[in-house]
Amino acid sequence: MKTETKITNVAAYVAEVGRRARFASRAMARAETRAKNRALAEIAADLDAQRETLAAANAADLEAGAAKGLDAALLDRLELTPARIDAMIAGLEQIAALSDPVGATSQLDYRPSGIQVGRMRVPLGVVGIIYESRPNVTADAAALCLKAGNATVLRGGSEAFQSNQTIAASIHRGLQAAGLPADGVQVLATTDRAAVGAMISHPEHLDVIIPRGGKGLIERISRDARVPVIKHLDGVCHVYIDDKADPDKAVAIAVNAKTQRYGTCNTMETLLVAESVARPLLSRIGAALGAKGVEIRGCERTREILADARPATDADWGTEYLAPILSVRVVSGMDTAIDHIEAHGSRHTDSIVTEDYSRARRFLREVDSSSVMVNASTRFADGFEYGLGAEIGISTDKFHARGPVGLEGLTSQKFIVLGEGQIRE
Amino acid sequence: MKTETKITNVAAYVAEVGRRARFASRAMARAETRAKNRALAEIAADLDAQRETLAAANAADLEAGAAKGLDAALLDRLELTPARIDAMIAGLEQIAALSDPVGATSQLDYRPSGIQVGRMRVPLGVVGIIYESRPNVTADAAALCLKAGNATVLRGGSEAFQSNQTIAASIHRGLQAAGLPADGVQVLATTDRAAVGAMISHPEHLDVIIPRGGKGLIERISRDARVPVIKHLDGVCHVYIDDKADPDKAVAIAVNAKTQRYGTCNTMETLLVAESVARPLLSRIGAALGAKGVEIRGCERTREILADARPATDADWGTEYLAPILSVRVVSGMDTAIDHIEAHGSRHTDSIVTEDYSRARRFLREVDSSSVMVNASTRFADGFEYGLGAEIGISTDKFHARGPVGLEGLTSQKFIVLGEGQIRE
Repeated sequence: MKTETKITNVAAYVAEVGRRARFASRAMARAETRAKNRALAEIAADLDAQRETLAAANAADLEAGAAKGLDAALLDRLELTPARIDAMIAGLEQIAALSDPVGATSQLDYRPSGIQVGRMRVPLGVVGIIYESRPNVTADAAALCLKAGNATVLRGGSEAFQSNQTIAASIHRGLQAAGLPADGVQVLATTDRAAVGAMISHPEHLDVIIPRGGKGLIERISRDARVPVIKHLDGVCHVYIDDKADPDKAVAIAVNAKTQRYGTCNTMETLLVAESVARPLLSRIGAALGAKGVEIRGCERTREILADARPATDADWGTEYLAPILSVRVVSGMDTAIDHIEAHGSRHTDSIVTEDYSRARRFLREVDSSSVMVNASTRFADGFEYGLGAEIGISTDKFHARGPVGLEGLTSQKFIVLGEGQIRE
Repeated sequence: MKTETKITNVAAYVAEVGRRARFASRAMARAETRAKNRALAEIAADLDAQRETLAAANAADLEAGAAKGLDAALLDRLELTPARIDAMIAGLEQIAALSDPVGATSQLDYRPSGIQVGRMRVPLGVVGIIYESRPNVTADAAALCLKAGNATVLRGGSEAFQSNQTIAASIHRGLQAAGLPADGVQVLATTDRAAVGAMISHPEHLDVIIPRGGKGLIERISRDARVPVIKHLDGVCHVYIDDKADPDKAVAIAVNAKTQRYGTCNTMETLLVAESVARPLLSRIGAALGAKGVEIRGCERTREILADARPATDADWGTEYLAPILSVRVVSGMDTAIDHIEAHGSRHTDSIVTEDYSRARRFLREVDSSSVMVNASTRFADGFEYGLGAEIGISTDKFHARGPVGLEGLTSQKFIVLGEGQIRE
């Protein structure tokens, strides 16, 4: 087991890690696609070879966690089962198979002056990832940042310290085998909480921070950070069933959006139904959800149709349950539905079910959420489903990256100009 | 003349302006292209009709400025000559003629699940502009933000108060004539400095701040802002003349990049020349620049070739002169040139002059600046020259927007999903 080194000056240590990351970022940005893919393959092979070491490190984390009295859910997230190690390795291979975004050039158009102007994708530079218990994030996030040509500084949860350090060792061996700098991916060797404060305070060392974990962590980091943050807050997602909806699609989408998985951010939390179709559709949906054990909290008119529904409070409309609970409101029509989403939603993912062309167009234009859908389950809001290949998270911000963030969100663009001696008149 | 209202609680006033902007932003985001273009045309017509009022307001600002002892350069920037009013009106008409970015949808691809996923451009929301003496910014910036579907809060320099308020009145009449909310563009009715602090502290009211003005203002705002900032710091731009350069192109580009205008951010401040071609090329360039009165500050080897050159100090390599001064360094080749640009540049605009294919490719990839050029003058780094139509500024950041920022930089994207009842398996 690696023992945590006692670091007396955490701020100075994090600054030194940041300086090394900044230095390594230049080599990472220039790395050929071949070298980056080689590194990903070497990391995958090393993780496969180190399964026993990794299992032992993880067992030590689990033991220490149990001794500290961590709850069962936290211990479950912390555990690296053989299947989870398989998934980590498969993830690295999938990222190696994605197109390299760096250097990709678009819109290379001639201008009246004779110069040709285009945009070339470039890495952001140094990405900081701050996350909680799941140790697989160490490999997943590092791999995406690496493929996008960034240097990465990772700060995982203290309860996963041994697991994360073991994964970090595999990453370092993989980087070096591919001729890339080991400092291209650094996992902080301290569990001191002051390290988070140091990471988010230095825009000269880090270009962006991506926090992953509970809402408390993310709010705290967003409030205090001097480095730009790509963040995900709530997922209070809505499905609105219009009076012009196809009834079978409406029932299928509502049931799928709520019950396909309860704990995900793109799960529907509130169902809005147009009043003229509320009785037949809510009866069918209520029966289907009841059979799956979903509790319904409804407005007054919902409760006239679904006698078992509990009354919804004001707080229910803004709550992300992440559980088999659904709030339901009967509305007069699409305008009221859009107003409700504007007032209570979290701008994550909202879907309309309708066969009406003009309303579909208006809903797409007017709902200001990171994903807006017509006749599809909110559960599709996902980097894999959207064809991004993998995602580092889902942004509920508008600045820089919005919605599922894949390789492209980890890059920026620069302008390139190709001339034959043009000067400005 | 409008008298400045005494506002006792500036923070509360700015918060109220922000709330009204947020409310108006919804109507601005949904406004049809036709309505936005109508508003721009009405503003232009109103400014034209109000020339006398505007001239009187501007005269009052100039008189107060002179009495306060403002220097000649500041008074010049403050002055609205008939030609500058013409330019302001022409700018509005040009922005009306640009394509509307809002709602533009791209990459609408089918996925294996059957859903069709694309990206739709959406406004950022509320844009804050903080600027100094030039009153024409009031019309230019408001027009770009309006066309991009944003609500705008403008805070101009106190010395331009009367001029800005008069332009604001034209904007309000134009918005209302087009059926858009007057609160879609608000110019703060106070010159209190506390208003800037209030604007940059409330991410719930403003989505982005664009500061325009001196470096001091921009650094202060970036340091303190809790709202994302699109900023422009230095323009320390380089031209590197490679030993494989076409000599005539090299001379033309170097002279143009330095002398076409001295005070602009994309003017060359440092010339780097490969040693094997330094003597013939620097002799020609030195003579041409000498004839235009440009002072040269050179490294030791430059001074062996150009006897009149003063010695360059370390500080010279990082200085944005904005004046007829040029620092010149002889380098061993492209790698040293790239290292110099990395060490001393400001990541704004850098150009290589070469006929060598592989070096051109490497320079484009490896130089990490917002504009990287081959065989073209740095003076082309500009929104109009790049075909963006107009620019609100040039970003030297990497996050969200980089290089000249036009309508696209004032927008974000959302994902849209079109389905026929798809649910997730």
